[in-house]
Amino acid sequence: MKRVLVTGISGFIGRHVVAPLLARGYRVHGAATRAVDLHPEVTLHVADLLAPGAADRIIAEIEPTHLLHLAWVSNPGRALMSLDNLRWAAASLELYRAFAQHGGRRAVLAGSCAEYDWTCTHLHETDTPARPRTIYGVAKNAVRELVAAVGPQAGVSTAWARLFFLYGPHEPPGRLVSDIAAGLAAGRVTDTTEGRQERDFLHVADAAEALVRLLDGEVTGTVNIASGECVPVRRVADILAELSGRPDLVAIGARPTPRGEPPRLAADVTRLRQEVGFSPRHSLTEGLRATLSWWCEQARDARHSETRPQPLP
Amino acid sequence: MKRVLVTGISGFIGRHVVAPLLARGYRVHGAATRAVDLHPEVTLHVADLLAPGAADRIIAEIEPTHLLHLAWVSNPGRALMSLDNLRWAAASLELYRAFAQHGGRRAVLAGSCAEYDWTCTHLHETDTPARPRTIYGVAKNAVRELVAAVGPQAGVSTAWARLFFLYGPHEPPGRLVSDIAAGLAAGRVTDTTEGRQERDFLHVADAAEALVRLLDGEVTGTVNIASGECVPVRRVADILAELSGRPDLVAIGARPTPRGEPPRLAADVTRLRQEVGFSPRHSLTEGLRATLSWWCEQARDARHSETRPQPLP
Repeated sequence: MKRVLVTGISGFIGRHVVAPLLARGYRVHGAATRAVDLHPEVTLHVADLLAPGAADRIIAEIEPTHLLHLAWVSNPGRALMSLDNLRWAAASLELYRAFAQHGGRRAVLAGSCAEYDWTCTHLHETDTPARPRTIYGVAKNAVRELVAAVGPQAGVSTAWARLFFLYGPHEPPGRLVSDIAAGLAAGRVTDTTEGRQERDFLHVADAAEALVRLLDGEVTGTVNIASGECVPVRRVADILAELSGRPDLVAIGARPTPRGEPPRLAADVTRLRQEVGFSPRHSLTEGLRATLSWWCEQARDARHSETRPQPLP
Repeated sequence: MKRVLVTGISGFIGRHVVAPLLARGYRVHGAATRAVDLHPEVTLHVADLLAPGAADRIIAEIEPTHLLHLAWVSNPGRALMSLDNLRWAAASLELYRAFAQHGGRRAVLAGSCAEYDWTCTHLHETDTPARPRTIYGVAKNAVRELVAAVGPQAGVSTAWARLFFLYGPHEPPGRLVSDIAAGLAAGRVTDTTEGRQERDFLHVADAAEALVRLLDGEVTGTVNIASGECVPVRRVADILAELSGRPDLVAIGARPTPRGEPPRLAADVTRLRQEVGFSPRHSLTEGLRATLSWWCEQARDARHSETRPQPLP
């Protein structure tokens, strides 16, 4: 019986891994800091993994054979330089250690393209040096180095999933796609940069499918999770504007490009394609279309609930 | 008022930092896993820093202005590949975070020359890459990377002390000097390798003085703590044999040199000399003489207590 613990199951990525895990026959346990509506077959454990002893308790209770560790600092805007990264690094090490000590066999942990040296433009798992510039990147990279060293000794087959730029339903606000799509759905103008910088965008459902395929296989070490298609950020803004039929709501170039923004961050996806055997299902246009629909539904639901009679206070 | 918390104060290095800290006017708090006899001016806190929440509790109680973090896996023989390194990495991050959050100003943490790429022979803090080959080295290096990244954000002036090969009173068994000196003191033959490999040896009291000087200053980043003198291991064995007058008790070459032993690990001590302003007081011969005397005293005390009338059971 494959029994997986998914940390951060209520988060942006976590919500999307449930379906592919169930489809592959996993018994799914999820950890989240508060109760959320999930698939009825998921066992939810409400726990703060930063609380002393929490990792040990949850692992001892579930005794998972598989671990998919997605939880990290929850506020993405402040995540890059927050001291909470230190806490999450420590908690991740404790979680991994407890998992190993309770007989865990296979672990996939979420890393980030922020671990790479961003003066490079083509990012390859082993050829491109890790040289993170943010506390977030340093913390992720430190955990990666440790689990990679400890894995063989601990008897845990371990892969490190370096996620690139994800978008899709439930994306937190303050990011490119979520801000533009939410703005379009609300009929509000969104200012963007000129968007010449090139990035690899992947629909979160595809990323979730890739993570589960990775977890269900035997590939160890670092694997880029990305589409393999690197496009100017402006192209994403253009597609969303066009799909919405309201190009006037996307003010391209209205915001200055932040200094030091790397011109191109292209993911090498050879390992993901050839070793993990994964290719994304959504093209960029299809993925953005589905995402925009979701934001429009959200906006409709919000308007609908506003016009409903409200209960007296 | 300078208030320092020394973790691992009952350990090999910890015992030796008390005197130089008191001499510099520090109020000294020490953490150790069990009660030990220390200088009467030291406040001892018996605590297991690996226990959930322990770091937070001890920091909140003391509110130290300074932190000298020496504690780590206590069993040196098993330390290199032990999973406990993972726990100590996590606990060290928690300790540092708690220290920062409670207003800590200056921290020195014990690193190791095991963080370096040992295919290099001259080890310089920034020019020589970190490429640890053991879990111990990876864990130390991961903590180093994180505190270096977090320090400025956390408002904690932070230095990382990369310790080389220390010897002296209270050195744990199973290491070159402790095994030979204990053998000589007991009149027992000790087998050694041929000892062509070259290492930098420093008397632990000098290392302790260097650590305290580093803590009491403002140098940040990584600093090698070493003598600057790199000698064949055989020279250490020869000096001890000669000092003892019993060269027959040191069987040089009786043990094979382990495969993959790096031929030379010389510390660059430019930063330590010029920026920290530290030079060792003991020459290698004087340091080994003092160390051998200590082991002989220990052996005499042990014999003495054996011949004393024992209480009835």
